[in-house]
Amino acid sequence: MERHRTSNPDMKRQNVRTLSLIVCTFTYLLIGAAVFDALESENEINLKNELLQHEKKMIEKFNISEEDFEKIRINVLHSKPYKAGVQWKFSGALYFSLLVVSLIGYGHSTPKTVFGKLFCMGYALAGIPLCMIMFQSVGERLNTFVTYILKNIKKCFRFKKTEVSQTDVLFITLSLSSLILTTGTLLFSELENWSIIDSVYYCFITLTTIGFGDFVAMQKDNILQTRPGYVFFVLLFILVGLTVISAAMNLLVLRCLTLNSEDEKRDEMEAAEAARNAVRLNGDVITGNGGVVSNANETPEYQDTVSVCSCSCYKWRSPNSGKIYNSNPNINHVTSFSVAKEDEMSEETDSFLQWQKAKRASF
Amino acid sequence: MERHRTSNPDMKRQNVRTLSLIVCTFTYLLIGAAVFDALESENEINLKNELLQHEKKMIEKFNISEEDFEKIRINVLHSKPYKAGVQWKFSGALYFSLLVVSLIGYGHSTPKTVFGKLFCMGYALAGIPLCMIMFQSVGERLNTFVTYILKNIKKCFRFKKTEVSQTDVLFITLSLSSLILTTGTLLFSELENWSIIDSVYYCFITLTTIGFGDFVAMQKDNILQTRPGYVFFVLLFILVGLTVISAAMNLLVLRCLTLNSEDEKRDEMEAAEAARNAVRLNGDVITGNGGVVSNANETPEYQDTVSVCSCSCYKWRSPNSGKIYNSNPNINHVTSFSVAKEDEMSEETDSFLQWQKAKRASF
Repeated sequence: MERHRTSNPDMKRQNVRTLSLIVCTFTYLLIGAAVFDALESENEINLKNELLQHEKKMIEKFNISEEDFEKIRINVLHSKPYKAGVQWKFSGALYFSLLVVSLIGYGHSTPKTVFGKLFCMGYALAGIPLCMIMFQSVGERLNTFVTYILKNIKKCFRFKKTEVSQTDVLFITLSLSSLILTTGTLLFSELENWSIIDSVYYCFITLTTIGFGDFVAMQKDNILQTRPGYVFFVLLFILVGLTVISAAMNLLVLRCLTLNSEDEKRDEMEAAEAARNAVRLNGDVITGNGGVVSNANETPEYQDTVSVCSCSCYKWRSPNSGKIYNSNPNINHVTSFSVAKEDEMSEETDSFLQWQKAKRASF
Repeated sequence: MERHRTSNPDMKRQNVRTLSLIVCTFTYLLIGAAVFDALESENEINLKNELLQHEKKMIEKFNISEEDFEKIRINVLHSKPYKAGVQWKFSGALYFSLLVVSLIGYGHSTPKTVFGKLFCMGYALAGIPLCMIMFQSVGERLNTFVTYILKNIKKCFRFKKTEVSQTDVLFITLSLSSLILTTGTLLFSELENWSIIDSVYYCFITLTTIGFGDFVAMQKDNILQTRPGYVFFVLLFILVGLTVISAAMNLLVLRCLTLNSEDEKRDEMEAAEAARNAVRLNGDVITGNGGVVSNANETPEYQDTVSVCSCSCYKWRSPNSGKIYNSNPNINHVTSFSVAKEDEMSEETDSFLQWQKAKRASF
């Protein structure tokens, strides 16, 4: 019961955070809808009228029946990818595979056969986690490398503090991301004859993995087959870009996961403290009966409060603390141990709170 | 120097893991390319010829010049979204906003104005992390809820083990995901007149956020404006689907992050042990000179090995352990403390290894 009373308020706090995130997202969506409506609606109407007038002209000029024009429409829409070049020979298929597993999914060319669609789903099912883990892993390595370099630079210039904060690393990775974005923008605007706005828009939509597919590289003059060097550059741009962004995401996502894991840690602290009190009681009663059962029962309790969090300290989760009581029914040992635990625990609680404050400050 | 010797092999191990992930991903991409080539290439050639023949027929039938047909082509391609209905009035803009922040990005309709494109980028920049954190947060809550329910069920049926493993929760969330996928498939194949294959393909491509946009819901008969109920259902399907998948991802990604964080923890263990030896040395020398400096230098060393990992135990990161040595140059205290630490450390190392084994076993 004690445990429940301590953990409930924290559960509430985490639910409140989640609820406020939901409210924020919905508000953000409504604001976005309003702004996009304001920005695009008028242009949409004008463009639509323009296109319809032009269509009418063509229909009249060539005296095409509505039925036939619909046939032409369908034909044009279906043949769009094939007009751009061969899409499914090896280099094109490799481009498509990368677009699937990286979640970009332009959709400039998609499988048309049933087996193609089925394989695409199976391929994505295994490929997406693999790709995600790969990018996260490389991103994490990149962060470690950046940290190492930064630390050595700080040492070289004899800084007082040689330790490197997550913020420093995040700053570097975000700078790298914008460098890649800029390079891509300039190169694609040159190679694809896009305006700078369209080019930066393409790079941004690609590297965020939104991948609208309104602008797609290598979709003219059969480039996929004729210019392997360019194909290599585009694949490299996507891979390097996504790696650097993953490095930033690795820090950002971990930072946000930390908020929950901090709560989990506090839950454990409280649960552990509650458990310690319980153990003390056992310590007094142990002469009568080594009340180990109640102590053994504690462990799962922490486990299911932290089950979704890999960040929480394994120590309280480990049955060791329990084992010690089991293996040593010696009261002196229990008392001395529980006292040692008490010091260490309060010391830890302090250090945890300090660390938490420091973390909050560094935000 | 000692420290470097202990941490290097682990660094190597983590690099080897990352390298093998890169090799796996590239192999996977090459295999994918080969299979897609085999599955789609032939169909592509046939379809292309078919479409070209049909195009030729139409051109001859209506005696359209190549130049004019190109004009018709461009007109048809541009007017595709407008033929489907009004795209940028509120409900359409809301649909688009969700597709941007959720990274689905069908691209069935994209901003055409410069301000639209610029706002889209800015909107995504803030919206993607917000949406990501929201889904992660709700997913994490869902996991906690599932854990709570499972535990109570196990208690109801008087299971010997009432603790709920990540695998149990993962199983439930994955089952929920497939339930949503199936429901979506049946409903969309009914509402959009798609074949079951196309419908499951659409749901899969949407909920994985690949979002090709070859199949897009609400792209006929101006549904976005005429059927608000259907619009609500589609938005709900996307939101609920992505939440449940995020819950599964929350577990999967954390599991994979755990692999690195386990290494980080081991690094810390070794670093801490190395530090402990260093401290002992100081303990002996301390009568001559309180060799605190070398001890003070240790702390940052651990910090930058764990700087990208929020999962590692804050305890070694906190300067407390350092502080104690600083504040107490009393050799007896140092010795007694270091002994206490030694017991606790080795005990922790055991518990950590046990926990690690248990974790590996549960995979």
